[in-house]
Amino acid sequence: MTEHVVGIDYGGTSTKLLLAAAGVREAVPMAQAVVPTPRGGDALEELATHVEAFVAGRPVRGAAVTVAGIVDDRGVVLTSSNLPWLAGVAIGDVLRTRLGFAVVPVHDGRAAARAEAVLGAGRGHEDTYVVALGTGVGSAHVVRGVVEPGAHNAAGEIGHISQDEQGRPCSCGQRGCLETFIGGAHLARRWREVVAASGSASPGELDALTAQDLVAAARAGHPAATAILAEATTALARGLLGMLATVDPGRVVVGGGLGQAPDVILEPAVARLRARATFHQVPPIVPATLGPWAGAWGAALTADEVGSA
Amino acid sequence: MTEHVVGIDYGGTSTKLLLAAAGVREAVPMAQAVVPTPRGGDALEELATHVEAFVAGRPVRGAAVTVAGIVDDRGVVLTSSNLPWLAGVAIGDVLRTRLGFAVVPVHDGRAAARAEAVLGAGRGHEDTYVVALGTGVGSAHVVRGVVEPGAHNAAGEIGHISQDEQGRPCSCGQRGCLETFIGGAHLARRWREVVAASGSASPGELDALTAQDLVAAARAGHPAATAILAEATTALARGLLGMLATVDPGRVVVGGGLGQAPDVILEPAVARLRARATFHQVPPIVPATLGPWAGAWGAALTADEVGSA
Repeated sequence: MTEHVVGIDYGGTSTKLLLAAAGVREAVPMAQAVVPTPRGGDALEELATHVEAFVAGRPVRGAAVTVAGIVDDRGVVLTSSNLPWLAGVAIGDVLRTRLGFAVVPVHDGRAAARAEAVLGAGRGHEDTYVVALGTGVGSAHVVRGVVEPGAHNAAGEIGHISQDEQGRPCSCGQRGCLETFIGGAHLARRWREVVAASGSASPGELDALTAQDLVAAARAGHPAATAILAEATTALARGLLGMLATVDPGRVVVGGGLGQAPDVILEPAVARLRARATFHQVPPIVPATLGPWAGAWGAALTADEVGSA
Repeated sequence: MTEHVVGIDYGGTSTKLLLAAAGVREAVPMAQAVVPTPRGGDALEELATHVEAFVAGRPVRGAAVTVAGIVDDRGVVLTSSNLPWLAGVAIGDVLRTRLGFAVVPVHDGRAAARAEAVLGAGRGHEDTYVVALGTGVGSAHVVRGVVEPGAHNAAGEIGHISQDEQGRPCSCGQRGCLETFIGGAHLARRWREVVAASGSASPGELDALTAQDLVAAARAGHPAATAILAEATTALARGLLGMLATVDPGRVVVGGGLGQAPDVILEPAVARLRARATFHQVPPIVPATLGPWAGAWGAALTADEVGSA
């Protein structure tokens, strides 16, 4: 009977569950489900109930769960900004006790990057640099299927390299970081400023605007939206060029929510990068293919290793 | 009887010869010599004669020779800007035939970086990022004794990340690269401009000025020299911060000719870096210890591997 692995992507608002045959080699799911993220003191009990129903008695070799935060060597969550009720909890131990199979925590961004490199747009390539354009900007260099963590688990912060020391303040404490140009939160704020200045939206409508609204306005030819994205894609081009000069990866994969808009983000950024490149070895720079399921696939890859260890 | 390895650092003007006991674990030489670099059509014959006299009949397991240029998979030098007579020559084969022991070519900058990481200021540490401040700016991430080459042998070009797209033209075709702020050739040119404007030097004296003269003037309190180095060390701080954010190394070692002036280069740069750092994990950032012999030591390390293979 086929053994299974379970990937759990424990997100801020919704949680994705993925079932795959053990020995994952390609992104072909046996089952997928999305549930509202269990919150608060009973969150893990509720999550386990969801997983149990999802697995439906099939044999499970192991599972992994993404955590948007820092997990110590013993598997205890130290901090998680999105899921504060996990602080101090040995999430894997709690779920294993309840479910009866091994469950290990994995960093959400690293899981997604690894999945894109191994199963997604980097599949079959020895090394891939994965960039996630979401609310913030994350990245990871994946070499032979393994994320390069850095000496202090802090590699891949290309979103927090300043391009303008007089620029807009960044959450990291610097100014003018790449993230202040192309992070979703910054783009949404800038678009709200434009719409507010036009006087055409109520406060409630303003609050609801996101970076995707900016993308839609740029696609419709709105000049201010176009100008904001021109600045954003120029910054992305500069940031990627610096990364290429430093790391020289064989392939670059760009994902995340804003990675889903290649026509107005990735393609213009790559064009600007090529216009600026001189000595650089510019590798293929391609959109991610796993979409919002990358984190769950990364968890499934981790579960595979744990279960077979 | 002790077996030996020979490291040959074939430089643009002088060539360093280093003899060490095979199984190199620390930078303790058995013999060292410096000879004028053999040039032109008979260069390798002459170099072999120097090596033969230097070795003086002692048993040699193997040797390696640095090449400032690109060597193909078969050991043929494709291009070398400093040593143009090597183009098309299988330098290792020629020397082995003449000397009777294995001689392999090794990239000069990588050899020096590896030696600093393994035998110099990075000794005993798992991973070290080595920066060479010379005529240009080179760098390499050395992990467990091995240089990370990049997918196209092009990693480590942090000297060619632009900090100012309207800045001074760089040899790489971009503008405002780190190298235009702190590369020795750029610093020498800027110092010549200052001295020329003062009208106090003859054309011959101007031509002879180097970056080391700028360093000496800054140490003596010359305001223009101080201002140039303030800009240079600010740029170095920015460049190192970007590298830390991307790579997160466990240790940074700064060498090269300008690395020998830590009081006016490295220390102010590190102070500026620390003043700007926010989320960064700032590892120890220390001066190199092997000085001009780093390349020869790197060749000795390579010779050790070849001879024992």
